[in-house]
Amino acid sequence: MSQTLPAAIPASVFERCADAIADAARELSAMGWTPATSSNFSMRVDAGHAAITVSGRHKGRLGRGDIMLIDLDGHAVGTDARPSAETALHTQIYRRWPEMNVVLHTHSRVQSVASRLFAADGVIRLQGWELQKAIAGYHTHESVLEIPVFPNTQHMPELVARVDAWLDAGKPLHAYLIDGHGIYTWGRDMAETQRHLEALEFLLGCELDLKRLRAS
Amino acid sequence: MSQTLPAAIPASVFERCADAIADAARELSAMGWTPATSSNFSMRVDAGHAAITVSGRHKGRLGRGDIMLIDLDGHAVGTDARPSAETALHTQIYRRWPEMNVVLHTHSRVQSVASRLFAADGVIRLQGWELQKAIAGYHTHESVLEIPVFPNTQHMPELVARVDAWLDAGKPLHAYLIDGHGIYTWGRDMAETQRHLEALEFLLGCELDLKRLRAS
Amino acid sequence: MSQTLPAAIPASVFERCADAIADAARELSAMGWTPATSSNFSMRVDAGHAAITVSGRHKGRLGRGDIMLIDLDGHAVGTDARPSAETALHTQIYRRWPEMNVVLHTHSRVQSVASRLFAADGVIRLQGWELQKAIAGYHTHESVLEIPVFPNTQHMPELVARVDAWLDAGKPLHAYLIDGHGIYTWGRDMAETQRHLEALEFLLGCELDLKRLRAS
Amino acid sequence: MSQTLPAAIPASVFERCADAIADAARELSAMGWTPATSSNFSMRVDAGHAAITVSGRHKGRLGRGDIMLIDLDGHAVGTDARPSAETALHTQIYRRWPEMNVVLHTHSRVQSVASRLFAADGVIRLQGWELQKAIAGYHTHESVLEIPVFPNTQHMPELVARVDAWLDAGKPLHAYLIDGHGIYTWGRDMAETQRHLEALEFLLGCELDLKRLRAS
Repeated sequence: MSQTLPAAIPASVFERCADAIADAARELSAMGWTPATSSNFSMRVDAGHAAITVSGRHKGRLGRGDIMLIDLDGHAVGTDARPSAETALHTQIYRRWPEMNVVLHTHSRVQSVASRLFAADGVIRLQGWELQKAIAGYHTHESVLEIPVFPNTQHMPELVARVDAWLDAGKPLHAYLIDGHGIYTWGRDMAETQRHLEALEFLLGCELDLKRLRAS
Repeated sequence: MSQTLPAAIPASVFERCADAIADAARELSAMGWTPATSSNFSMRVDAGHAAITVSGRHKGRLGRGDIMLIDLDGHAVGTDARPSAETALHTQIYRRWPEMNVVLHTHSRVQSVASRLFAADGVIRLQGWELQKAIAGYHTHESVLEIPVFPNTQHMPELVARVDAWLDAGKPLHAYLIDGHGIYTWGRDMAETQRHLEALEFLLGCELDLKRLRAS
Repeated sequence: MSQTLPAAIPASVFERCADAIADAARELSAMGWTPATSSNFSMRVDAGHAAITVSGRHKGRLGRGDIMLIDLDGHAVGTDARPSAETALHTQIYRRWPEMNVVLHTHSRVQSVASRLFAADGVIRLQGWELQKAIAGYHTHESVLEIPVFPNTQHMPELVARVDAWLDAGKPLHAYLIDGHGIYTWGRDMAETQRHLEALEFLLGCELDLKRLRAS
Repeated sequence: MSQTLPAAIPASVFERCADAIADAARELSAMGWTPATSSNFSMRVDAGHAAITVSGRHKGRLGRGDIMLIDLDGHAVGTDARPSAETALHTQIYRRWPEMNVVLHTHSRVQSVASRLFAADGVIRLQGWELQKAIAGYHTHESVLEIPVFPNTQHMPELVARVDAWLDAGKPLHAYLIDGHGIYTWGRDMAETQRHLEALEFLLGCELDLKRLRAS
């Protein structure tokens, strides 16, 4: 893949983003959260651009050539590569929140199963877990953390509209699940976003375990 | 093991296949999908031959000497080594589909348990999972992906006949389970076949989890 | 982070403690028991001081600069770094038992789920497991090992008081869980404390599995 | 630890055994089957001696100094080291079967939970699993593989007597579980014994999964 950068973006800036994405992807792949070339990851490059994973690559073996530049309308910039179909869900975050700089979408077994199980409710409510404090802005296990579960669709604008509708209703949003699919979460930098993702995977896993055990 | 190659097969071609098999086997073994020397893997070498794992070897430590040449009737070619008892299930794929070049058979706990659980139904129907799209030809989670579960037998021709019967009935087939045993899947190259295998392991695991949780 | 040591503590002594904590933390992180920067670890340096992890760091990548000195009232000594909010639970152990030299607090999924499940009982009673013998002072599987589950709170003095009340009632205590949170355990040296932690994680996991299976 | 060898045992022979034990132990520890310094492993050195793990060591980090020589009455030979309390269960195998050269005892969560669950039955009957064929002498999934579950005791002669009673009743024995504890299995060499252990862990795990799912 050949990537030509706009004059305003130094190669070193793009490469730093690409390397951060590849490093995180390698860790998430090793956890088994990116099966069968699923998942996609992005990082804001500047006010109008982001670096994002090219569609269909093995997430445990990304190199710089597997990361491409897009603008915030989701169009490829300076490359013929095809961005992930779900690019619109990444750019939506960057457009709405200038302070958000990283979006991670993974596809673990816990995430997929939880999304199916809570799809009818449309939301998973987490409460009473100390690890809720790993989400930016949460300071006690007594808070309630709501993760919406949106219906899956192959038509991205529908999903974008559902996210917008949730936010326009004034509800806090730190992550969402898509039914039968995976999770999206974001943060101000890679460390915060990985912390969010790890905490959410942990909390969803705990909820599933507890549900099974309480039924016993 | 000594392997003599027919004149029409350059050593470099056989070795490339053997190395690709050994590399994939190492990864699959590290996932725990090849317990106790189970599982077998093959790759087409040319129109009339395939490379396949010698029976009974530890799949995490295969070298070139653990891969042998067979013809598409399943006979050893240029070696005294014994091919796996299940060689006939590999050659059946290569004979029916000239475009298929890799067959992977693994034996994970999820695969074995799912096969027992759905043996009476004779089939597992997958629907509503985004990861169905990892199977070649599937473009939406709304499709139905059917994985047949055939009764186990130590007599391979019976299994070959069951696979033929399924195909002759005009039903699509991308993989099958054998009861109390494991999975067979295939593809045009190693990357596609590994993607199929990873997706199927993931989907079967999700189905088992969901079944447990919905009963809760 | 800059750490100035009191004259009575040679740098080599502090560094030995810091390295032992970082090594153990790397192992515990690799097991997945420290998700999303949770967990904290400490080691006694002398009669009046301990080394403890700085709050909020990734436990798989601790260096010497991520470990700080505190006195046994939980105050930072010779550094501006912020000790973990839960420091008081570490110093309580060092003050009560001069022979205890290491405290490990982790946050595995098994620990969190078990704590929620047994919170109403206030205790988990382990009996009939050979691995109870891994806890110092236990010599047979016929003994009963009680692990209290204390309610979670963001106000540490409440937790300190609950631990004190348990001990003042004359009950043996080798570890405790906090509801929706994780486990605390301790020992005379790092090897004993890691053995305690491994055994407790194993035993809690077995209890959860058995509960699910006995309901089947 | 200092180990003096009898004149009839060359250092190279003892060291080969010790290294094989340490290598296998490292692999089994990495699987999580030897928690909290549990488990013990041995290999026959000659007709009257075996090498066995010294009690209480971390099984992921064994060196030659953590393996000692015993005679087939279980007495230390040429060392002050203390053999494992369960040495009598190893020597019993070597005394009864001259063709058996390796004994592995591990303590996985699956093994401990299965032993508790089937303790009242006194036996686990495995049937219908292809992987039964990994046990020496089994050639079809239609065979029945019986694994007895003996009551736990801290008094080893009781366990030795139970094993003898099973064998004296003429029943086949390839492995046994001890209630709340772990598994013992053996074989003609290390590769066969590891294959037995891997297959048994897999089969017990499948049985537990299936029991949970069939109740769903």
